[in-house]
Amino acid sequence: MLIVQKYGGSSVGDAQRIKRVAERIAGVKNEGHDLVVVVSAMGDTTDHLIELVKSVTSSPGEREMDMVLSTGEQVSIALLAMAVKDRGLDAISMTGSQAGIYTDGVHTKARIREIQCDRVKGELAAGKVVIVAGFQGLNGTGDITTLGRGGSDTTAVALAIALGADLCEIYTDVDGVYTADPRVVKNARKLETISYDEMLELAHLGAQVLHPRSVELAKIYKIKLQVRNSFNHNPGTIVKEENDMEKSMVVTGVAHDLNVARIGLFDVPDRPGIAWKVFRALAGEHINVDMIIQSAMRNGINDISFTVATTDLQKALTVMEKIKDDVGFSGYTWDDGIAKVSIVGAGMATNPGVAARMFEALARRNINLEMISTSEIRISCIIKADQALEAVGALHDTFGLADGAEN
Amino acid sequence: MLIVQKYGGSSVGDAQRIKRVAERIAGVKNEGHDLVVVVSAMGDTTDHLIELVKSVTSSPGEREMDMVLSTGEQVSIALLAMAVKDRGLDAISMTGSQAGIYTDGVHTKARIREIQCDRVKGELAAGKVVIVAGFQGLNGTGDITTLGRGGSDTTAVALAIALGADLCEIYTDVDGVYTADPRVVKNARKLETISYDEMLELAHLGAQVLHPRSVELAKIYKIKLQVRNSFNHNPGTIVKEENDMEKSMVVTGVAHDLNVARIGLFDVPDRPGIAWKVFRALAGEHINVDMIIQSAMRNGINDISFTVATTDLQKALTVMEKIKDDVGFSGYTWDDGIAKVSIVGAGMATNPGVAARMFEALARRNINLEMISTSEIRISCIIKADQALEAVGALHDTFGLADGAEN
Repeated sequence: MLIVQKYGGSSVGDAQRIKRVAERIAGVKNEGHDLVVVVSAMGDTTDHLIELVKSVTSSPGEREMDMVLSTGEQVSIALLAMAVKDRGLDAISMTGSQAGIYTDGVHTKARIREIQCDRVKGELAAGKVVIVAGFQGLNGTGDITTLGRGGSDTTAVALAIALGADLCEIYTDVDGVYTADPRVVKNARKLETISYDEMLELAHLGAQVLHPRSVELAKIYKIKLQVRNSFNHNPGTIVKEENDMEKSMVVTGVAHDLNVARIGLFDVPDRPGIAWKVFRALAGEHINVDMIIQSAMRNGINDISFTVATTDLQKALTVMEKIKDDVGFSGYTWDDGIAKVSIVGAGMATNPGVAARMFEALARRNINLEMISTSEIRISCIIKADQALEAVGALHDTFGLADGAEN
Repeated sequence: MLIVQKYGGSSVGDAQRIKRVAERIAGVKNEGHDLVVVVSAMGDTTDHLIELVKSVTSSPGEREMDMVLSTGEQVSIALLAMAVKDRGLDAISMTGSQAGIYTDGVHTKARIREIQCDRVKGELAAGKVVIVAGFQGLNGTGDITTLGRGGSDTTAVALAIALGADLCEIYTDVDGVYTADPRVVKNARKLETISYDEMLELAHLGAQVLHPRSVELAKIYKIKLQVRNSFNHNPGTIVKEENDMEKSMVVTGVAHDLNVARIGLFDVPDRPGIAWKVFRALAGEHINVDMIIQSAMRNGINDISFTVATTDLQKALTVMEKIKDDVGFSGYTWDDGIAKVSIVGAGMATNPGVAARMFEALARRNINLEMISTSEIRISCIIKADQALEAVGALHDTFGLADGAEN
């Protein structure tokens, strides 16, 4: 089998952990499998590098930021290669550039365009464990780019696709995908399997175990993902096309996201193309907009509310200030004291009344819903941030997720 | 003018120093010069990285070592580019690979083969300050190599050559080239100019201010070097073809090197090709041999002694053990408690009696000479390490270097 493994920053957080990962790699390799290993930067390396940058300037250019940040993985791949070699195996580390990972030109949030994996294949054929830097690539100008949040997951899945791997294992510091964040809900239950679609929704909703981009890619190319804990040998959670074990579950999991802020625009002229102007401007700055609500008002004038990541709030407000006169809204407000709670389940589409049960559970606890959005298999509500954890617990109970029975 | 500047690790040791270097760069750029800046890793970054490696393995492969070490400069170039931009100038950082620095395949001690500086030229033409990572390049396989000790100096001179620069300034934490190490000899005097040849000898002898490889390159391509202190605006020392100011000096400087170890081989068969076998084996491991003494003995058998850097001693002893039977010597001994003291001066060749004055000065202080070697403009002696500093002071006095009068 050809297996791509990905180890996150906490799995390679120090020398001891790197050696433990090397041992795990040796175990798999000695079973006769071919192995490509994608690694993140060690523990809090990235934070240290960001601090270092801040000590020099308050406005680092994004190209230079990528130049600095990409060194984190460059160190961890080499250290892991050394540790694997110490176990008598042959190994070679590769930067994103050496592994042929080409991206678009968007620094700090680049997307993979193509992987030219001749060299990776060659080293595999020579019997080596190939250890690739996650999170990074090279753009058309030959500059180093980073892939932004969840970049290493994306690197792993993209490599699995390019190499035609049989399995992509994502190692992290939790046992798998849970019915809710186990740090918040004590009786949250680990799922044995989950469908791509459900995982995609959960990932989008802030379940940090897998990044949505990687799930999306895995879904399109039907790459079997396995989320596992690098600190034990538990089987973890398998993400695949059919969610057989829990297919009867109406609701599979509850998610919450505190990285949410709302911007409200007042008195937006109700003409075609106006909303487009607003969201094109945000897209131009690579700001993702999540929920959008437009409320029809009097005299051809609307209010528009939308949510962005709190981390993008300042940038988004700058955009609003810039386009205000051109678009013609009278003013704007913002709120970063909010959170999003969601329920996800493939069975939801065919089971009416799920939304009503959700709203009832929240209403009983005096939790006010500020915005609502739904998909086929998801219902999300914006509520006050300080009620988020209570809401998650209530929903987990309401849908009986702890025991895994039909809900 | 097109100027290549190089800043060593201590000059960019922390955020404050990086900002100071940026200010200096802005000053030069605003005078209308084009600027390429070569930077080493910050302060003790390299030591920290080596420690990190040691915490993982005691035998890191050299390829992986280069992968780790090269991140040091990658961070410092980006930080410096940010700091320069903060001063309103345009700047861009480039790794060795991006700057087109191609080397041979010898990891940790690579030599530059070629610089393809189209991109550097393009960025200069666009008005940018180009900030290049010293010490590193790319080999034919696309792997990152490092140039070993003094690598950043070499990068700077090689770039100056490739770009046809008018001047190459080497910034360090001392005021220039001295008649002796000023930390050892209190009245050591800074030289205003020195010839390539003298500088080359001094550099080879352990004067750490410039690496011999960079001086060699500068000499061949007649690149004017200026050694300056990044912490002040003193003129420093100019290294160029003709040493006019001190051309009447018989002895220009005194150098000492404690990184010296001696290996002695017993009973080496006196047949053609035997010495060649020994030194070819050492060269094969990239171990530089400095002095060699062969003493003719009885019955067609010789003793051979030679010196290597203390840092190469273990590797050299391993080589001796391996070739012992094949070469046919009966045994070997080693001593790392020795030092080399040398006097250098272009006038030496035409002034007889210099050696005698040197030996007398040392003999008067009961300093025993274990090995002697000479060139046209240099005399070196191996003595006991604990007498090295006394010897340097004695020679500095004997040749009247403190006052700069004719000696």
